[in-house]
Amino acid sequence: MNDSASRTELAALHQVLVESALVAWTAGNVSARVGDDRFLIKPSGVPYERLTPESMVLCDLDGHPVAAGLKPSSDVFAHAYVYRHRADVGGVVHTHSTYATAWAARDEAIPCVLTAMADEFGGEIPVGPFALIGGEDIGRAIVQTLEGHRSPAVLLRNHGVFTIGGSAREAVKAAVMCEDVARTVHLSRQLGEPLAIPQPDVDSLYDRYQNVYGQ
Amino acid sequence: MNDSASRTELAALHQVLVESALVAWTAGNVSARVGDDRFLIKPSGVPYERLTPESMVLCDLDGHPVAAGLKPSSDVFAHAYVYRHRADVGGVVHTHSTYATAWAARDEAIPCVLTAMADEFGGEIPVGPFALIGGEDIGRAIVQTLEGHRSPAVLLRNHGVFTIGGSAREAVKAAVMCEDVARTVHLSRQLGEPLAIPQPDVDSLYDRYQNVYGQ
Amino acid sequence: MNDSASRTELAALHQVLVESALVAWTAGNVSARVGDDRFLIKPSGVPYERLTPESMVLCDLDGHPVAAGLKPSSDVFAHAYVYRHRADVGGVVHTHSTYATAWAARDEAIPCVLTAMADEFGGEIPVGPFALIGGEDIGRAIVQTLEGHRSPAVLLRNHGVFTIGGSAREAVKAAVMCEDVARTVHLSRQLGEPLAIPQPDVDSLYDRYQNVYGQ
Amino acid sequence: MNDSASRTELAALHQVLVESALVAWTAGNVSARVGDDRFLIKPSGVPYERLTPESMVLCDLDGHPVAAGLKPSSDVFAHAYVYRHRADVGGVVHTHSTYATAWAARDEAIPCVLTAMADEFGGEIPVGPFALIGGEDIGRAIVQTLEGHRSPAVLLRNHGVFTIGGSAREAVKAAVMCEDVARTVHLSRQLGEPLAIPQPDVDSLYDRYQNVYGQ
Repeated sequence: MNDSASRTELAALHQVLVESALVAWTAGNVSARVGDDRFLIKPSGVPYERLTPESMVLCDLDGHPVAAGLKPSSDVFAHAYVYRHRADVGGVVHTHSTYATAWAARDEAIPCVLTAMADEFGGEIPVGPFALIGGEDIGRAIVQTLEGHRSPAVLLRNHGVFTIGGSAREAVKAAVMCEDVARTVHLSRQLGEPLAIPQPDVDSLYDRYQNVYGQ
Repeated sequence: MNDSASRTELAALHQVLVESALVAWTAGNVSARVGDDRFLIKPSGVPYERLTPESMVLCDLDGHPVAAGLKPSSDVFAHAYVYRHRADVGGVVHTHSTYATAWAARDEAIPCVLTAMADEFGGEIPVGPFALIGGEDIGRAIVQTLEGHRSPAVLLRNHGVFTIGGSAREAVKAAVMCEDVARTVHLSRQLGEPLAIPQPDVDSLYDRYQNVYGQ
Repeated sequence: MNDSASRTELAALHQVLVESALVAWTAGNVSARVGDDRFLIKPSGVPYERLTPESMVLCDLDGHPVAAGLKPSSDVFAHAYVYRHRADVGGVVHTHSTYATAWAARDEAIPCVLTAMADEFGGEIPVGPFALIGGEDIGRAIVQTLEGHRSPAVLLRNHGVFTIGGSAREAVKAAVMCEDVARTVHLSRQLGEPLAIPQPDVDSLYDRYQNVYGQ
Repeated sequence: MNDSASRTELAALHQVLVESALVAWTAGNVSARVGDDRFLIKPSGVPYERLTPESMVLCDLDGHPVAAGLKPSSDVFAHAYVYRHRADVGGVVHTHSTYATAWAARDEAIPCVLTAMADEFGGEIPVGPFALIGGEDIGRAIVQTLEGHRSPAVLLRNHGVFTIGGSAREAVKAAVMCEDVARTVHLSRQLGEPLAIPQPDVDSLYDRYQNVYGQ
């Protein structure tokens, strides 16, 4: 995809966050890798309804804008860290979506009790440590926590959710599904204990969904 | 209804799932029997906003497409099983709607504590066993669990909801009402124990709703 | 208001129920008194998106249509009973709105712990007995339960909500506010016990809202 | 901003309350300071869909309209009190938003357990005393409770939320974010105890968000 198409798609994906009710006011952001050593990301503090393809900020893999213009999201260094350390990642999403963040505030992973979780996340959605914004701490927390998990989503304690994907659209899908299952499992646990899915069944569901589902 | 009208209605019914907030991303599907030995169903993994009448996949009652084109939903064999074993069924819906699935994750039936449940479901909404996707297990779980219940909706453990109806529209109605009562009973139980409706009153309400309600 | 204006307003008020998420599928209904001895009401089982001013059914105060055409709501006899016994009532609304019905399923009144409740309801929202649809039982339960309460809303056990007003629009307002406070008080009680408002303050708030608020 | 631009923006900000689902029926209001000794505020009891720039009521700092016309919101004296005692305030918002009001009904402050709370509120969202509408009591409760807190939002017991800002838009942002964090912390506490963020980290997050975030 060329730079212009990426900008258009990235602006559109930000609207998916709004339509899916994953973000409030200016919180949250999506980024998309462009070529090997650049990525586009939401500008800092700009309302979603004013985002345009042109307002997306092109950055290098250290998180610095490659041209003068709008400042990138203050989460830019977390995104940059992920792109530097995960060559397979083409898109990153960050939200404070309600139910997922409610789990994160208790420092709890979301257990795999739904076939939809086995399909998309291949097991639990893990939770990583508290980390302050602005440096490499959040990026490192994302990458280290996702090691050893199939999940493209990670909760960060007291903070929110980061998701990754082969493309920005896949990362947005993971953010949507993360909130969906976070909500369902939350509700289920309010009235008792949801039942775990045996690991061989989780494996079977994950394998099928990743390799057979879709066109 | 001819094939073209069925396709148009089936595409429209998928939008009802979206508008009723019963589905996330590409999850969920509706099918409609066409004649005695065919049914139309959603294609696998296609976003709801791109569904068209033409994209609906015509299958035989073994769940195989009758023409080259898009792959059917990966739930196609469950739908096919239902059509083969229930000649009265003209439509099937599958969702992971939030509150119903929260009950399913605990392997709990939804008790009949609302007149709206007595009207539409004639008693509890039962829960069936865990079953893996791809073969006949889910279809069999649906058909066997619904035996001996008036309910057109069944929860499947750790999974979600299937509903049936004389038409696809009736099955969609059952899916909408299932989530509605699942939510209300869930909330009611959060703060105490909802009161059961005596069986004779359930019978009376069900009889009236099925035979007197509507035009 | 003449008959034609009443029909137009009544159709529009049904859309307010939809927009306020108080109703699912064809459940719920609004009626409006026309003159002294007639009222208009929703037809039975017609989807909200197909309601037109012409489809509203004109009935006498025994609940019988005054002309051939669509059947009235199956709640028509409850509405009729209210109009016969409460000359001050110009509109009636019935819903199964989620949070209010969750209270009703436990047979619990909603305690007055919000200034917004004191304003609109002047105290608790009471709960009446279980009653079967189709005769005078529901109407009697509404009228008897509202005696001795300022509230224009009443919960019926295992069923839902009825609201009354000087006009259909006022009854719709009461239905919207009933669900709003039912939800807030429900949520508040999930994490502890909301504090009661002393009766003199309830009285003061109710008096001011009924007599000073608005233009 | 001249009077005409203020009216247009204030009418638009009321629609943000509706779109953000912070208000039901005619409840809630926004005001905006105009010059040093005037402010514009919502008229009393007018439905949100009928609000126009012209319908906003210009008042002096005692809360009295400066011209004949619509009556101001019955919360006008609370807004006036805030403008008289806080020269830094350019906008005030009042809502009964659901989750925040659920905390207020229990007389509980919302603890700072989310980075988004540290960013916007700099600590807990405090709760002030019960106060009757119509005089100076509510205004005094707002101003006194906010002393010694960084939070631009305050809960009032049994009532709802007031937020302040350098502009009306900033106060609306605080109202949106207040409900967002009230909901997330509420949900988190339903299933356990959310973890506090250490005060030095709260301070660091607040400082950064107030001084670095945005363009």
